[in-house]
Amino acid sequence: MKRFLDLADFSREEILDLIALACHLESHPEPRVLAGKILGLVMFNPSLRTLSSFQVGMMRLGGSSFVITPGHGTWQLESGIGVTMNGAAAEHVREGLPILASYADALGIRAFAEGKDLKYDLAETNFRAMSAVVDKPLINLESAVNHPCQALADWKTLEDLTVPQRAKFVLSWTNHPRITPMAVPAATVHMAAHRGMDVVVLRPEGYALPPETMDKARVAAAASGGSVRETNDRTEALAGAQIVYAKEWGSITHYGDSVGDAALRAGLADWCVREDWFASASKDCKFMHCLPVRRNVAVADEVLDGPRSIVQREAYNRLPAQMAVLYRLLSNGGTER
Amino acid sequence: MKRFLDLADFSREEILDLIALACHLESHPEPRVLAGKILGLVMFNPSLRTLSSFQVGMMRLGGSSFVITPGHGTWQLESGIGVTMNGAAAEHVREGLPILASYADALGIRAFAEGKDLKYDLAETNFRAMSAVVDKPLINLESAVNHPCQALADWKTLEDLTVPQRAKFVLSWTNHPRITPMAVPAATVHMAAHRGMDVVVLRPEGYALPPETMDKARVAAAASGGSVRETNDRTEALAGAQIVYAKEWGSITHYGDSVGDAALRAGLADWCVREDWFASASKDCKFMHCLPVRRNVAVADEVLDGPRSIVQREAYNRLPAQMAVLYRLLSNGGTER
Amino acid sequence: MKRFLDLADFSREEILDLIALACHLESHPEPRVLAGKILGLVMFNPSLRTLSSFQVGMMRLGGSSFVITPGHGTWQLESGIGVTMNGAAAEHVREGLPILASYADALGIRAFAEGKDLKYDLAETNFRAMSAVVDKPLINLESAVNHPCQALADWKTLEDLTVPQRAKFVLSWTNHPRITPMAVPAATVHMAAHRGMDVVVLRPEGYALPPETMDKARVAAAASGGSVRETNDRTEALAGAQIVYAKEWGSITHYGDSVGDAALRAGLADWCVREDWFASASKDCKFMHCLPVRRNVAVADEVLDGPRSIVQREAYNRLPAQMAVLYRLLSNGGTER
Repeated sequence: MKRFLDLADFSREEILDLIALACHLESHPEPRVLAGKILGLVMFNPSLRTLSSFQVGMMRLGGSSFVITPGHGTWQLESGIGVTMNGAAAEHVREGLPILASYADALGIRAFAEGKDLKYDLAETNFRAMSAVVDKPLINLESAVNHPCQALADWKTLEDLTVPQRAKFVLSWTNHPRITPMAVPAATVHMAAHRGMDVVVLRPEGYALPPETMDKARVAAAASGGSVRETNDRTEALAGAQIVYAKEWGSITHYGDSVGDAALRAGLADWCVREDWFASASKDCKFMHCLPVRRNVAVADEVLDGPRSIVQREAYNRLPAQMAVLYRLLSNGGTER
Repeated sequence: MKRFLDLADFSREEILDLIALACHLESHPEPRVLAGKILGLVMFNPSLRTLSSFQVGMMRLGGSSFVITPGHGTWQLESGIGVTMNGAAAEHVREGLPILASYADALGIRAFAEGKDLKYDLAETNFRAMSAVVDKPLINLESAVNHPCQALADWKTLEDLTVPQRAKFVLSWTNHPRITPMAVPAATVHMAAHRGMDVVVLRPEGYALPPETMDKARVAAAASGGSVRETNDRTEALAGAQIVYAKEWGSITHYGDSVGDAALRAGLADWCVREDWFASASKDCKFMHCLPVRRNVAVADEVLDGPRSIVQREAYNRLPAQMAVLYRLLSNGGTER
Repeated sequence: MKRFLDLADFSREEILDLIALACHLESHPEPRVLAGKILGLVMFNPSLRTLSSFQVGMMRLGGSSFVITPGHGTWQLESGIGVTMNGAAAEHVREGLPILASYADALGIRAFAEGKDLKYDLAETNFRAMSAVVDKPLINLESAVNHPCQALADWKTLEDLTVPQRAKFVLSWTNHPRITPMAVPAATVHMAAHRGMDVVVLRPEGYALPPETMDKARVAAAASGGSVRETNDRTEALAGAQIVYAKEWGSITHYGDSVGDAALRAGLADWCVREDWFASASKDCKFMHCLPVRRNVAVADEVLDGPRSIVQREAYNRLPAQMAVLYRLLSNGGTER
C-alpha cells in the first residue's frame, strides 16, 4: 500500500483484509514492527481522535511521530496554484509538504473543505494539490469530502458487532448551530454501500447530499449487492433500521452562504436524535456518530448515554484500524501480512 | 496505585515511600520500566513545568506521551451535565475523555477553577465530572483547588533539605495583577500540615483561605502532630520561620468578581516578598514558590536570585516525584517497589 | 562541543568536519546513539523546518524531544532584567529556562529579533540573557541576528553540489509585504565568507546590512581567503554568479518603523527573483532560499519550480546537519567521531 486516501481505492476484500489485520494487532501487539519509522501529521484543522490515535498508533507499533499545525506555531500555508502570496500565508505547500515528507517516512494531512465553492471541494482540489507534491506514503486524515480513516473504523465497528451485510443502514442528518463539512457523510454513505448494506440517507428538504456523492455510493452498492436511496420521511426511513448513523452537514443549495443555511435550518431543531426515533427500528438497532457531537443539539443525552450507542467503540476503532493502515504503509521487517 | 488525585488520599507513610522511590529513581534510572506505556496529557490550561516534566518523566522511564490542548488544535470541550451544546464547545468530556483513555494507559488532566462559584470549585465539580468517565489510571495535573504533583514535589524538596518535621512553615499571600486560583495554596497548606509542620497562613484582610480548605489542613495536622493557624500579622508570622512559601490567590469574599478583588488588592503592593521580610526568620530560612512567579510584583529579584530561594529545586523535583507516581501507576514488569 | 550558537565559534575545518559527520550519518544511520537523551525545544516564534527537523533528528538518533511554545499552551515568558512583571508575561526566563534545562539533556531556543532597537538586537541581548541561565548544551534555533543551523545546512548544500570554494555567491534582498528579521541574511553572508567564497550583497538603497554584520563577514573572509562587498547594481552583481541566495529583510534606517519601511519598499516590487535575473549568471547558477518564501512576491514560481532551485535540498539538509550537531553535543556511548 502506498497511499490511504479513499476507501473507494480498495476492494471489499482488501478492506476486510485490512480490518482482519486491525483485529490481529489488537490481540497480537507488535510493539517493534515500526521501530525507527516516523509519521508526520499535518493538521490544518482541529482534531481530538485523529491527533491522538495516530500518535498512539505509531507508539504502539514502536515508531514515532511529529505534529505540524499551520497557523499555530507554524507558518500559515498557501495551497493555491500561481498565487501572489501577499496575504497571511508565509509559505506554500509546494515548499512545506515535500520538506516534511523528506524528514518523515510517511505523512498524514488533515485539510477540511474550504466551504466556498462546492465544485472545488467536491473535486478535492486542495487535497489533490497537496498530495501531488508528496512522494512518501500519504494518509488522508480528513479532506473536503472524505474521511477514509473514520470510514474504515466504522466498517470495523460493524464487523465487530457482526451487523449483517444487508442490514438497513440509515445515515441521518442532524442539527448543528452552524454549517459543517460533508466529509463524514460522504465517506459514510459510500462505506456502507461498499460494505453491501441497504443505505437510506434521511435528511430534511434542502439537505440532500451532492449528486456526485450519491452516485459514488451507488457505484459501490452496485458492485457489492447493496442499495442506496434518500428520503425526507423519517418514519419510513427508520422503520426496521439496524443502524442509525447521525451526522451534521451543510446545505448544498446554500453552499458557502451561512445566512441562507441558517435560515434553512432555523426550523429543524427537532432533528436531534432522541430515543423515540427508534420506536419502529430494529429492536437491537445501534446508534453511530463519528464525533465530535453536540449533546442535546444533534443527539440527546438519552441516546448517547443509552445502550444503543456505539460511538465509543467507533472512536476506539480508529486506533486499531489506523494501526493496520500504518502497518501496511510502513512495515517491512515485520511479520508479512 | 490507581489514581493520583489528592495527597489526602495517601498516608504520611505512603507519601514518604513515594518520595523514597523518587529519590531511588534519581540515583538508579530505570530507562525501560515503562516501555510501551503511553500517557495522555489533557491540558485545559497553560503549563510549563507540568507539560514538560510529564513528557520527560515518561521518556526517562522508557514510555511515551501525547498532549491534547482543548481549544488549541483540539475542539473545545464541555463538561456540564445535561447541557444543550449550542455554544463554543464542539464536544463533551463524556465522549472525549473515555476515548483518550481507551487509546492510552493513563491520563493526566489539568483543569483550573472556573472562578465563578466558590462552592462549585471547592467541590471540584468539574474535575469530578471528568474523572468519573475515565476508567484508566488518572493523575490530577492541577484542578480547581488541588495540585497534588506540586505538593509531592514540594514535600520531597523539604525532605531533600532535611527540614525538620515540626519546623515553622509560613504560607504567605503575595501580590499579583489579577485573581489567580487557589489550587496551590490549598494543596500547600494541606501538604505542610500532612507532613506535621507548624503551619501559619499569612494573608491580608479579605484573603483568608476558605474554611473548608483550612479544615482539611487541620484534619491532616491533627493526624500528623502538626498545627495550622492563620494571621494577617506579618511580623509575628515570619518570626522564626524556617520556610516561607509565597503564593498569589484571589479573595473568597469577591469570588468571581474581578472589580471587587482589584479594589481590595489595590493597596497591597507591599505584599511582594523582599529580603527584609526575613529579618526575624530563622537564619537558614528558605524561600519557596511553585512558579510561575511575577518578579518584583509577587517576589523581588533579590529573593529569587538569592541563596534562600529553592524554587529551582522545587521545580526540578516535579520530575522525580512524578516519575515515582508514574512508576506506581503504570509499571508491572519492573523492579517491585 | 558544548553549545552551537554561532558558526563563527567554529573554524572552517571544524565546520567541514561537522558536515562530514552529517554525510556519514546519512549513509550510516545510528538509530540508538542518543538513546535516552532528551532535547527541549523552546519556540518563541513560528517554525516549520526547525520544529520538525529537530524532533525528527532526535528520533532518527534514538532520542526524544519535547516542545514548549510560550504564549501557546505555556505561559508567556519575560526576558528583561529587573523588570516589574505586571504585564502579559507570567514567568521569567530566569525561572523557566533553567528548569527546562534541568529536565532535558540539551535545549534549543528560537527567539527572533524584537525589531525595535537595532543595537539591542545586534548585541543579541535577548538571546544572551537566556543562554546565560542555561547550563546544559544549547542550540541557537534562530536568534535576533543569527541562524547557525540554517547556515550549516546551507554550507553542506554547497558541498553536496561541489560548488567551488571561491565561487561568486550573491545574497540578494527580495520583496516582502512586511519587515522581516535579519537573522538569515546575517548568518548567510558570514557563512559564505567563512567558506571562502566571493560574496556580493545585492540590495536596493536603504537595505544595506548593518556595518557590524558586514564587518563580521569580512573578518571571516580575511581568514578563509574569500571576499565580501555590497552593491545595489543588480546587473553587475548577478554577472557570473554561481549562487543566488534570496532573502527578505527590513531596513536598518527604518528599524522598528513599519510605516517608514513600507514607504521605502513601496517601489521595490520588481525585487522578486525571476528567471531573467540569471541571464548573465553562470550557466549552472543555482538558486537558494532558506524558506519560508512568498511565491511571486519574493521569488517567482518559474524559479522555485525550475531546475536552478535547490531550496528543497537546503531544507532537507537541516536534518543531517542538525543530527551532526546533536551527535556532537549529546553522544557519549556512540562511535567516537
